[in-house]
Amino acid sequence: MRITLLAGGVGGARFLRGLLAAAPDAEITVIGNTGDDITLFGLHVSPDLDTVMYTLGGGISEDQGWGRDDETFAVQSELTAYGAGPAWFSLGDRDFATHIARTSLLTAGMPLSAATARLCERWRPGVRLLPMTDDDVQTHVLIADEGGRREIHFQEWWVRLHAKVPALGFTFAGADLSAPAPGVLTAIAEADFVLLPPSNPVVSIGVILAVPGIAKAVAAKTVVGVSPVIGGAPVRGMADACLTAIGVQTSAAAVAAHYGSDLLDGWLVDTKDAAAATAPELAGIAVRAVPLYMHAIPATTAMAKAAIELATELSR
Amino acid sequence: MRITLLAGGVGGARFLRGLLAAAPDAEITVIGNTGDDITLFGLHVSPDLDTVMYTLGGGISEDQGWGRDDETFAVQSELTAYGAGPAWFSLGDRDFATHIARTSLLTAGMPLSAATARLCERWRPGVRLLPMTDDDVQTHVLIADEGGRREIHFQEWWVRLHAKVPALGFTFAGADLSAPAPGVLTAIAEADFVLLPPSNPVVSIGVILAVPGIAKAVAAKTVVGVSPVIGGAPVRGMADACLTAIGVQTSAAAVAAHYGSDLLDGWLVDTKDAAAATAPELAGIAVRAVPLYMHAIPATTAMAKAAIELATELSR
Repeated sequence: MRITLLAGGVGGARFLRGLLAAAPDAEITVIGNTGDDITLFGLHVSPDLDTVMYTLGGGISEDQGWGRDDETFAVQSELTAYGAGPAWFSLGDRDFATHIARTSLLTAGMPLSAATARLCERWRPGVRLLPMTDDDVQTHVLIADEGGRREIHFQEWWVRLHAKVPALGFTFAGADLSAPAPGVLTAIAEADFVLLPPSNPVVSIGVILAVPGIAKAVAAKTVVGVSPVIGGAPVRGMADACLTAIGVQTSAAAVAAHYGSDLLDGWLVDTKDAAAATAPELAGIAVRAVPLYMHAIPATTAMAKAAIELATELSR
Repeated sequence: MRITLLAGGVGGARFLRGLLAAAPDAEITVIGNTGDDITLFGLHVSPDLDTVMYTLGGGISEDQGWGRDDETFAVQSELTAYGAGPAWFSLGDRDFATHIARTSLLTAGMPLSAATARLCERWRPGVRLLPMTDDDVQTHVLIADEGGRREIHFQEWWVRLHAKVPALGFTFAGADLSAPAPGVLTAIAEADFVLLPPSNPVVSIGVILAVPGIAKAVAAKTVVGVSPVIGGAPVRGMADACLTAIGVQTSAAAVAAHYGSDLLDGWLVDTKDAAAATAPELAGIAVRAVPLYMHAIPATTAMAKAAIELATELSR
């Protein structure tokens, strides 16, 4: 079985743990969001790729859901002593090594996809991890505060401002000129089906779909998504702040309607949201209600099994 | 009083501690060797500048004489896990922060001299620290071993091979096309005198003098050097391996003769080497014998005082 996913960070990585348990023999390709990538201290940081890599490779901080386990903070503390910014993005020493290794490969002329493959040689995540693109695409957030109306980098909004300043909109800067990374379109075309894990529909899955060619390739396949919203609230993260900005209600049904029936064939909602199955705006999308909390691997495995079953049924 | 020094790493830095104690009101400019600079893991490492900065700024590892105090090694251990090389150059986490900060400034377009000034804003070394050049000059070592006759980077010879493979010669790659960093020639011209601390005469002082314009500017001044050789052996480091390669005996007199009376006006030797005062090859160089071991700051201060006294006498 060949499964391809579009994935963000924590939600995608946790779902993938369940998927690997549910389908140990499947060939899984993960197309990761790089719109959150940011240059910090001159180093290329790819938060979502790293979260997937660390989670599946056994190096994640389980408490946080992102970053490395057993971290120390000598490097950042020294950088602060040098007045080198920003201070609002916390990077541990072990995590720094990943960014140093990646940046060194990129500086040597390697595209991000090849650098990611090199890093994965160590972590052996059990999936093929591809960045959505080797080009520079940056998720920017339009805000208005005492500094005026302006666009800031997604990480500044998400991490420094905790998404508390309302987003007026998102721009995926550079997306229109970007191309899918090598292997991305083939992994979609050759998959038995495509899964959308419970990642942020706007700034994770949305930005991946904004890379020219990806949305069309995905729409041509059987696609099953997993709702990142349960009972009107995001399971984790601040997806509601993103949905509100683009005029989408924070509900399982509204997110599916936002993706649309051209893209989605099936949609898993939590049992709390079973009513979505009969929502008129989801005509053409097969909705199934199952428990969606990923509190432990057995629960996540059951979710992944339900996604595989629905996708298999819909592919027939 | 204005004093300008050409300095390498540990020997220069230790002498500077004594000089700051001996002449607390002097304006001291240090022109540092950057021929040992190396790109490791994509980061610009300036070992000699950092040794001066850390030593005078209170951040040096006193045991080693180079690198940071209280080091940890999380970053390098992770880089090794990624298979990112080289493993033979040990960099601690705190030291990494310096290289990250420097590289980030260089990548942003700052010349090395400005980046060095920025890093020194934190360390406040009490001297003005200038790299010899903002251009890329690399000390290469010609060796012949099982890998054939070839040039390797100075650090590979010094650190990986511990200078045990005989050097057949040195090349200061890029030196002929380099220019002194901003402020270097002025600091020499405006100094009351120039001191050469007991740094390596070949790969520290020698490479600085190879930057076009510096040797001529120095020769025009009163110059007093401090022998890095005591009783036929280098005080520390492996200067003998460098001297042998260029056909200079490892003796206090031979090093002074190598610099020559066109450059040197005065030469401090250890009391063990007092006979150098009458060596015919040192005609035209005022030789004075004083204790030269820098085992503690009072001894080093006395050495620096002797150098100042000799230079002051010779300037009259």
